[in-house]
Amino acid sequence: MIKSRLFIAALAAFATPAFADGMVENVNGITLDKDGKVIRFSALLIDKEGKISQLLTSKEKAPKQLDFRHDGRGLTMLPGLIDAHGHVMGLGFAALTLDLSGTNSLEEAQGAIKAYAAKYPERRWIVGRGWNQEKWGLGRFPTSADLDAVVADRPIWLERVDGHAGWANSKAMEIAGVTGATKSPSGGRVEMAGSKPSGIFVDAASELVSKHIPAPKPGERDLALAEAQKALLSVGVTSIADMGTTIEDWQSYRRAGDAGWLSIRIFGYAGGIDNMVAIAGPRPTPWLYDDKLRLGGVKLYLDGALGSRGAWLKKPYADAPGQTGLSFLASAEIRNLMVRASMDGFQTAVHAIGDAANADAIGAVEDLAETYTGDRRWRIEHVQIVDPADLPRLAKNGIIASMQPVHQTSDRLMAEARLGPERLAGAYAWNSILKAGGKLAFGSDTPVEAPNPFAGIAAAMTREDAQGQPFGGWIPTERVTREQALAGFTIGAAYAAFAEGKVGSLTPGHRADFILVDTDPLLASPAQIRAARVKETWLGGRPVYKQDDIAKTNTPNDATSR
Amino acid sequence: MIKSRLFIAALAAFATPAFADGMVENVNGITLDKDGKVIRFSALLIDKEGKISQLLTSKEKAPKQLDFRHDGRGLTMLPGLIDAHGHVMGLGFAALTLDLSGTNSLEEAQGAIKAYAAKYPERRWIVGRGWNQEKWGLGRFPTSADLDAVVADRPIWLERVDGHAGWANSKAMEIAGVTGATKSPSGGRVEMAGSKPSGIFVDAASELVSKHIPAPKPGERDLALAEAQKALLSVGVTSIADMGTTIEDWQSYRRAGDAGWLSIRIFGYAGGIDNMVAIAGPRPTPWLYDDKLRLGGVKLYLDGALGSRGAWLKKPYADAPGQTGLSFLASAEIRNLMVRASMDGFQTAVHAIGDAANADAIGAVEDLAETYTGDRRWRIEHVQIVDPADLPRLAKNGIIASMQPVHQTSDRLMAEARLGPERLAGAYAWNSILKAGGKLAFGSDTPVEAPNPFAGIAAAMTREDAQGQPFGGWIPTERVTREQALAGFTIGAAYAAFAEGKVGSLTPGHRADFILVDTDPLLASPAQIRAARVKETWLGGRPVYKQDDIAKTNTPNDATSR
Repeated sequence: MIKSRLFIAALAAFATPAFADGMVENVNGITLDKDGKVIRFSALLIDKEGKISQLLTSKEKAPKQLDFRHDGRGLTMLPGLIDAHGHVMGLGFAALTLDLSGTNSLEEAQGAIKAYAAKYPERRWIVGRGWNQEKWGLGRFPTSADLDAVVADRPIWLERVDGHAGWANSKAMEIAGVTGATKSPSGGRVEMAGSKPSGIFVDAASELVSKHIPAPKPGERDLALAEAQKALLSVGVTSIADMGTTIEDWQSYRRAGDAGWLSIRIFGYAGGIDNMVAIAGPRPTPWLYDDKLRLGGVKLYLDGALGSRGAWLKKPYADAPGQTGLSFLASAEIRNLMVRASMDGFQTAVHAIGDAANADAIGAVEDLAETYTGDRRWRIEHVQIVDPADLPRLAKNGIIASMQPVHQTSDRLMAEARLGPERLAGAYAWNSILKAGGKLAFGSDTPVEAPNPFAGIAAAMTREDAQGQPFGGWIPTERVTREQALAGFTIGAAYAAFAEGKVGSLTPGHRADFILVDTDPLLASPAQIRAARVKETWLGGRPVYKQDDIAKTNTPNDATSR
Repeated sequence: MIKSRLFIAALAAFATPAFADGMVENVNGITLDKDGKVIRFSALLIDKEGKISQLLTSKEKAPKQLDFRHDGRGLTMLPGLIDAHGHVMGLGFAALTLDLSGTNSLEEAQGAIKAYAAKYPERRWIVGRGWNQEKWGLGRFPTSADLDAVVADRPIWLERVDGHAGWANSKAMEIAGVTGATKSPSGGRVEMAGSKPSGIFVDAASELVSKHIPAPKPGERDLALAEAQKALLSVGVTSIADMGTTIEDWQSYRRAGDAGWLSIRIFGYAGGIDNMVAIAGPRPTPWLYDDKLRLGGVKLYLDGALGSRGAWLKKPYADAPGQTGLSFLASAEIRNLMVRASMDGFQTAVHAIGDAANADAIGAVEDLAETYTGDRRWRIEHVQIVDPADLPRLAKNGIIASMQPVHQTSDRLMAEARLGPERLAGAYAWNSILKAGGKLAFGSDTPVEAPNPFAGIAAAMTREDAQGQPFGGWIPTERVTREQALAGFTIGAAYAAFAEGKVGSLTPGHRADFILVDTDPLLASPAQIRAARVKETWLGGRPVYKQDDIAKTNTPNDATSR
């Protein structure tokens, strides 16, 4: 007879589904071990739990008893890449809304808006994102009049590429009740054109208009998640740190997990303390769905972005004398929020772009670290402009610098304009951070940039953009090696989310998350790496993407409207 | 080689944990089959999934190959009982807060409040529930002065036994800013004592004070859930329909499920449309954690309760001329909310107590049923006072009457006073509903009443209270048989929640949820049934409660404060 154990704590809710012993062979296998050392192999064995059991070299023999063998066709096998900083639902909704990120002029954008409005006459609002007046060479922010010229009868709201400003037409401002008398809220700015609002709303001011947009329905959220998954898997991303998870986002992730269609791993960082408590409660969630979902930390904002002059600087902007950007939280406030999270065991990830913001974020960690000891892995997100004097404080405090290589190539001309030449010594300073003993994690900030990590690897090793500009790289001393770039998108990003040992390395015991690509990133030219094509993506020992199929399924569902 | 299937929909996130083949033998086994026919047996076989594989009579031989055999010691085995209407977190918090349900006079209550305040000096608010001025024979509502006499320096908030009124002291009203000038909100009433509020707040008026009570922290919610589980399992309840699940409640249930300590089955009915959307999104959730949790419907309120004269009546209260109670929603509003839920496949459970509310709830179903066809299982909760002319409309429309037998015995004197003799013909009319072909589901409304279903079974078959009053039963024609009473707490309650085939019957294929009790409810006297003791409770083939252990663990944790 069994012994009656009461209120059994160990009811194993998540047992392992029936996987198979298998082998993926005939590959140019590359991985880093936990110390960053390169391992090459030609076949990978997967156990019944979907984990890696063994790597084989070409000289080693395959086991006899296998449930399946899959031919890698000589392709390069890499660990599934990890995006250390992205916005899953933002990426998904971007796929469902108007995307202006490919436009190269105001006129081109106006044409796209007009066409979109004509294509979706039933949508009450025209919502989109991705514009960049710098890329357009416009020399000014666009205005509501620029939009009214193409659509005047329906409200339009378009987020800037960095998410730190929004652009409204007159109809949208009318619905929002914004007039010349509207005051800029704390942490935001209503741009003016004479006595009237110009149509541009920076940072916290965006809320004045955006809160009037009908919230998406849960079914639309699920569609967005599906779009995001497809977009990520198709470029080889199998795991992503989701920066700013809301309770609504989380419920969508859980619906996918519960129904069995969650096919990426999401490391959730709640959007503020309220979302953290609503999602996880008294402590981080366990790893759910065979390590596919967890809420382990909180994302906090300390400042804005450079493009909208919201980054908080120690000295005024070179191109806007007197302005030093926006400090979203007083020093005491950010510390209080970090304490609130840390006391319940949550990790903190603090957005800091300007040098003043980074100095304050580092200072906050220094203030807290004595009380909140143990393996905390304090994160700073972006770490773009750092006073060189502050750089060593990152490593000294074990702070993880979560950075986005492509931001450097996108931002460099703007950074030069905003900061002037003398403040660039600590700008996007990847190599300096590593040399000082700091830890890097690399991401894309998708949908601010495209989610393709191969562009990030190429940027990290060259500091040249897609056109090879500037030749030899921008501040080339801050380049990192190919291996360091790969580490940033694999073992570095895994460590940053407490996911080392689970993903990021193709060594035994890890989940069998891997990709088959047509390019060897340790041998190919930067241009070839940018052009790398992912042929297959596997998650937990099962295929979840194959290149030929994506075109069929990657179309936004036109049936949804907002 | 396996075929690459993309975006695999069937990743089985919840496979079955390793259970054992076993037998519980030497029992006086009783169950109803799906048609309500009694089956008796002496041993039950459990398969590796924790489901029932076979029933054995004393003449049949046990299989040889078993992982365990458990001796039922001749006890009566019944299906785990199902509470068709309760409030899981309400029960849990009641266990953590001041419980006045056992007090028999105002003086006794005052003594309990004073003692509680002295015991918990760190609690900022003194919060409790369970008072009943009718039971006290007070002849009036209590007042703030009655509370000020025992505790004046800290706010006090005490909910009435039915949850439809609250009692505040002066400190609480001061914090809430309630004065003689405060207006009664729609759907509620601030009781007055001359020109000042008396301290009693009915229905929607409760919010004026209760919103100032600090919200419980997630850890406190988890503690409340653990208390509720213990309370339910100790009286033989293994499943409960949770009426009014909030997103915060749900997250606590999921934390328990994720961490493996959810040990009751919760059929969630969201507290209103917003919670429904927040919890489940575009459709009901799947059954989670091996059928332990689901959000399948929404709870809507059409009126208040009889005790506080909030029940919506066709004609005025006999003891309050001119008052007809509170109609929470206009006819169009309740229909709109029911449409909103039904179009996404959610079940609706409408609270209706007065005869006007029941008529309108039935009318709403009649209006919707043409559009929302299929297996909808429209529920009305309480169904206490029904115009006899409306009774046949329940069966005709397939409406499930979700009723609480103990309410009848608690309420009868009050019902006589509120309604007068001529309106009692359709009061708590269980037998009439069954005879007309209607479907019954029985529950406790815990924490309004104690969660013990044996008291409900005894009340259902006698219409006598615990003291045997009135002898022969109140309106005895509305008694039901023992078997019908048991059905209300088993197969009837399972059907009401779309859980038939999973739980409620100890026949092959069902989850092995059962209890071992010292009393045979088909043979014992009503007094013996009320006194029945649950010796063991099993869920899904595993023991989750044993009588001797509960005393140790059933004490509220004094460490929590609000």
